[in-house]
Amino acid sequence: MTKMWKEIFQQPEALKSCIETNERAVREIADALNEADISSVVIAARGTSDHAAVYGKYIIEYKLGIPVALAAPSIFTAYKGTLKMKNCLVAAISQSGEAEDVLEVIKAANSQGAITLGITNFVDSPIAKECRFHLFTNAGVEQSVAATKTFTTQLASIAQLVAHWSGDENLAKMLKTIPENVSKVLCQKEAVITKVQRYRYMEECFVLARGINYSISLEAALKIQETNYVRAKGYATSDFHHGPFAMVEKDMPVIVFAPEGPSLKDVKEMTDKLISVGAEVIIVSNNDEICEMGNVSFKIPKTENDMISPFYNVVLAQMFACQLSLAKGLDPDRPRGLNKVTITR
Amino acid sequence: MTKMWKEIFQQPEALKSCIETNERAVREIADALNEADISSVVIAARGTSDHAAVYGKYIIEYKLGIPVALAAPSIFTAYKGTLKMKNCLVAAISQSGEAEDVLEVIKAANSQGAITLGITNFVDSPIAKECRFHLFTNAGVEQSVAATKTFTTQLASIAQLVAHWSGDENLAKMLKTIPENVSKVLCQKEAVITKVQRYRYMEECFVLARGINYSISLEAALKIQETNYVRAKGYATSDFHHGPFAMVEKDMPVIVFAPEGPSLKDVKEMTDKLISVGAEVIIVSNNDEICEMGNVSFKIPKTENDMISPFYNVVLAQMFACQLSLAKGLDPDRPRGLNKVTITR
Repeated sequence: MTKMWKEIFQQPEALKSCIETNERAVREIADALNEADISSVVIAARGTSDHAAVYGKYIIEYKLGIPVALAAPSIFTAYKGTLKMKNCLVAAISQSGEAEDVLEVIKAANSQGAITLGITNFVDSPIAKECRFHLFTNAGVEQSVAATKTFTTQLASIAQLVAHWSGDENLAKMLKTIPENVSKVLCQKEAVITKVQRYRYMEECFVLARGINYSISLEAALKIQETNYVRAKGYATSDFHHGPFAMVEKDMPVIVFAPEGPSLKDVKEMTDKLISVGAEVIIVSNNDEICEMGNVSFKIPKTENDMISPFYNVVLAQMFACQLSLAKGLDPDRPRGLNKVTITR
Repeated sequence: MTKMWKEIFQQPEALKSCIETNERAVREIADALNEADISSVVIAARGTSDHAAVYGKYIIEYKLGIPVALAAPSIFTAYKGTLKMKNCLVAAISQSGEAEDVLEVIKAANSQGAITLGITNFVDSPIAKECRFHLFTNAGVEQSVAATKTFTTQLASIAQLVAHWSGDENLAKMLKTIPENVSKVLCQKEAVITKVQRYRYMEECFVLARGINYSISLEAALKIQETNYVRAKGYATSDFHHGPFAMVEKDMPVIVFAPEGPSLKDVKEMTDKLISVGAEVIIVSNNDEICEMGNVSFKIPKTENDMISPFYNVVLAQMFACQLSLAKGLDPDRPRGLNKVTITR
């Protein structure tokens, strides 16, 4: 069994540990944030963690209405500049907690008296130590280069904090149902193994979603790139209309995340448009009607809250990427040209 | 002659008109912004205009140190949410001035008393009318679906505002040299026509840059997608290390924007790495040494200020995309599946 597959299956346990671990910390941070009257949020992250940052942007803007800027670390490094972050929450997301350019952003924020928060998988990491607050993803060591359990636990940490910060008890409650529901997604193992065969010779694809799942379209595309060397690109459906749609031709595989909720109408319109030009549509959804529209479909558990479906969508995408890699005769644990910890300055 | 090519060549004139037109407005807006003590900036835009927004994010963060959030319009539309934007500058960038979801963001901002700014090519457009301030790109009617002159004039409007807002007289002065230098880029017409032949059968490519030119890597990739149906993807070199590099194989075309300045060192390191795996490297630069490293290179004028090179890089990329489209026997003026004005809700 590959390390990646093993770690994908560790997610129910990892998510449970993560949520339990941070139960007290999120309350403490939420209190500090509510007291501080935060005017904006800056999140610094790279790679997969940057997709968790996109999830963070959407959930914070939606639940708290506070504008979120995703930091461009080159402002601090290449340009030797800084940002005015006095009334900001400045968060760093990094699996290893070692990303140097991300650490630069935190140091600048601390020197200005901003509230800083690190989300890492290592309690002793430089970022964990530098930040005033820390959320420990507690996912266990991740050996696979392609991040899986550290990504979903990053999402869980963010959602848990936002639930308390915004006082959304329903969201806090729903988060606790995620580990069990992720197990249900994992039960589709056989279906994934069978269905990926059709994409043995796939050379490229698009991954689309709208709203909070835009983060997952980016992450799913990255997983497919890393483990399959397939040109995969994630878009928000709203942006896809502007230019990229011109590239869709007959038989082009397009993965569409289409959970029930506020984004379904738009995503369905895009699906119709894709079908009309003969694209190969792969649906991931908990809505029967749109599932029937796909050439291939994967079911995810029902969700009442749109902030929850990203967990199920991404686990399905991880399984898809890992099994497709194996079907292509590749080793998902050894992406060429990549290291587990990437240091950018 | 195609409309796109004609409009690419109208850019020196369009940029001159744009800068002259806004001379008074930028001072007035800069005064209002300095008086208001802006805590953060929110920019709403779609498609090509969103790449102008990325340019805006970098130049504002670098020159003013104010965090810039790129709006996720779905927060306002799909989720029916809003943002707290009281002490914000909220800017909308839209060629047509008609983008409905972008207009929603402005309406919400106005209702909260934020300073709103529209950057459009139509003085009577809904966005121009709704915003407290307007910068008119004055590029003349753009007939080509692929935006060229409306993009560079959006960049010019933003840079001109930032020059006055930050009191950077050197930047203001340099902006006035852009039209003439863009003419110099256009003089490379024959070189572009000759050199694109090599890419007649190119099916995919990456476009890389770091810092402010990240916006241009996104825009260049979009131009190539729209007019060539080539899978093109733009990245910051710093993100490219995290995953996407795994997809680079021998002969893969990679366009690298490598102007002299703070980003050159990182970009050169990436170029070395690309060459070591046998990629086909296309350099756009004003540095002789890195130009010699490319399989093919294009020269741009010297720039002392890193905020200026995006103008030259993008004009070169527009010429490349347009001529490659013709070399491939396509019509750059008729991208399949696209309309000039895309309304997303």
